Amino acid sequence: MQYAASAKGDVIDMVSGNPDWDPPTALREGLREYSDRDSEAFQYPPSAGLNELREEIALRRNVDPDQVVITNGTGEANYLAMARALDRGAGDEAIFPDPVYPYYPGRVSLLGGQNRLVPTRENGGLDVDALTAAMSDDTALVVLNTPNNPTGAVYDLDRIREIIRLAEDYNALVVVDEVYDKFDLSGSFESAVTIDSSHRIVTSGFSKSLAITGFRVGYAILPDDHVSAAKTRHMLVNVSGARPSQFAVHRALRSTEPAYYEATRELLRDRIDAFTAALDASGAEYTRPQGAFYVLARFDGFPGTMANTKQLIDEAGVAGMPGSTFGNARDDWIRFALVTPRAETAATRLADYFV
Amino acid sequence: MQYAASAKGDVIDMVSGNPDWDPPTALREGLREYSDRDSEAFQYPPSAGLNELREEIALRRNVDPDQVVITNGTGEANYLAMARALDRGAGDEAIFPDPVYPYYPGRVSLLGGQNRLVPTRENGGLDVDALTAAMSDDTALVVLNTPNNPTGAVYDLDRIREIIRLAEDYNALVVVDEVYDKFDLSGSFESAVTIDSSHRIVTSGFSKSLAITGFRVGYAILPDDHVSAAKTRHMLVNVSGARPSQFAVHRALRSTEPAYYEATRELLRDRIDAFTAALDASGAEYTRPQGAFYVLARFDGFPGTMANTKQLIDEAGVAGMPGSTFGNARDDWIRFALVTPRAETAATRLADYFV
Repeated sequence: MQYAASAKGDVIDMVSGNPDWDPPTALREGLREYSDRDSEAFQYPPSAGLNELREEIALRRNVDPDQVVITNGTGEANYLAMARALDRGAGDEAIFPDPVYPYYPGRVSLLGGQNRLVPTRENGGLDVDALTAAMSDDTALVVLNTPNNPTGAVYDLDRIREIIRLAEDYNALVVVDEVYDKFDLSGSFESAVTIDSSHRIVTSGFSKSLAITGFRVGYAILPDDHVSAAKTRHMLVNVSGARPSQFAVHRALRSTEPAYYEATRELLRDRIDAFTAALDASGAEYTRPQGAFYVLARFDGFPGTMANTKQLIDEAGVAGMPGSTFGNARDDWIRFALVTPRAETAATRLADYFV
Repeated sequence: MQYAASAKGDVIDMVSGNPDWDPPTALREGLREYSDRDSEAFQYPPSAGLNELREEIALRRNVDPDQVVITNGTGEANYLAMARALDRGAGDEAIFPDPVYPYYPGRVSLLGGQNRLVPTRENGGLDVDALTAAMSDDTALVVLNTPNNPTGAVYDLDRIREIIRLAEDYNALVVVDEVYDKFDLSGSFESAVTIDSSHRIVTSGFSKSLAITGFRVGYAILPDDHVSAAKTRHMLVNVSGARPSQFAVHRALRSTEPAYYEATRELLRDRIDAFTAALDASGAEYTRPQGAFYVLARFDGFPGTMANTKQLIDEAGVAGMPGSTFGNARDDWIRFALVTPRAETAATRLADYFV
């Protein structure tokens, strides 16, 4: 990321996961409305989040508002869920499908747990047999992310259910991070919140769906056995999340039509078409993403090492993320984030470079 | 707090520490300005905080911007500092002057450390001899809060320096939480940031000084040996703080005149005069606060138990916080927060009730 930012010449940044499109109009209006409120509205919200936002989320997710903790982004939601899993004296191992979003194992290490990576199937889908073989009494936690960063896979709900049943046997918790749920391009995504289990925690947030990664509004939906521990840790670490952000998100949630989300999906589909056409032209290997906004690709004779990723910045003017960032299974691939209006230009550059 | 909120009749809330005055005009203007920014300004700020805000703080505090981590309120700053102290393998004991703000020992327990409370002097000042006697090789952390919640004491900088020198001998870290620094009513407050030591961490924030407890903008100033660990934990727990809040705070910091802070001090002085006059009239014991906005009081024959605190709500219509919330040393006192426009009415009610 630093190399791309300091590179000379015209480099198209496909490194970070920041949406480049506009947030909904109601989000900006919510912030303006908030700025005129009485000073009382500028003070601590309830630690677990503004009541109206918790209720709005609970309504949409069909859960009890008491099960919802509003967090400082989906990141904190995952941190709270992982901490709960590892704090129960029920094992210290965390299992992740590999490739893996690097913050997950980073958090487990911070919390004193052990990471175990289990390769996905070739298309990025869950390998239930391999996960089953990896789980044991030491397993405290399994973290699944669907739609997936970086593979773009959308997990089959039946497979998630199988993992949760196994987790029940081993007294592990399964955290399902659904932050990319509005970017399901396959029409097949189903939320794990419908799976009734005291071993299932769902996390999500509005950073991606409302194009506001800087607002830091996420949430965790926790079973009764775990919600109180998560609320306590949230209170001791952060006291509460930021109220201006929560207020604006609530307004945006209430007033944003499905057409907004459909428009971003349409934009992404067009970018994926252009980008994968260029990958085809350059003879690269890839799996067309079913969701989220990343493409993992491997170029023949050009493994995605840090050195090659830098060479691509310097010589092709396209910055991706080396596969080794995401565990071991795809360490010679490169991840490209399609959150730039120049995704099509980047595609042309890659095709020109590799042909 | 819940009892006060659900009580029948007219109860004056002196429980919570939310300022009841207006934030500076520039704060609201900053939020409005932000709401019109390009969508790029709505994405992740740097994990350690918006550069312009870090630089503004560093300039005011006369430190290197690299030593500053912007956090989700002063609460997270204290959490990061305490975690660093306890994570070094340099002991697992934390020492606090007693009475103590309850989040401090709560965080130590969350982090797996042991709490040790050392009574302050009668006026709330640091008892250096008692602290010296309590410190040992097990001591990982000493937390000082000045101006102090709940005693209102402003610590003598020479005493803080003595504690830091001792901490150097025992390889402990001293965290000095200065979130009430703008509410120094004594004119004697000096920041510990001027004490040059790799064992001194200063935390603060804008929740109180800008009357925005809900915005969640705080910071830690850490010596070189500790700043990197704090940044890593901050990134893994929260990714970053909320950018709308940081943007607005930066605008407020740049544009708010000293007169704003002086006006809030003047308001507090008036409230303290009225409130302590009533305490005098009711024969209560108290120490006039040198800073912050709390008064600890003890009524003759009416110890500040939870039961008596509830009785005061029901029979006098004034809600305080029982002293047992703040450790052991003042468990029969009651804390009153002077952040209500009805502080004077509350004073009259107390005087009438106890006379």
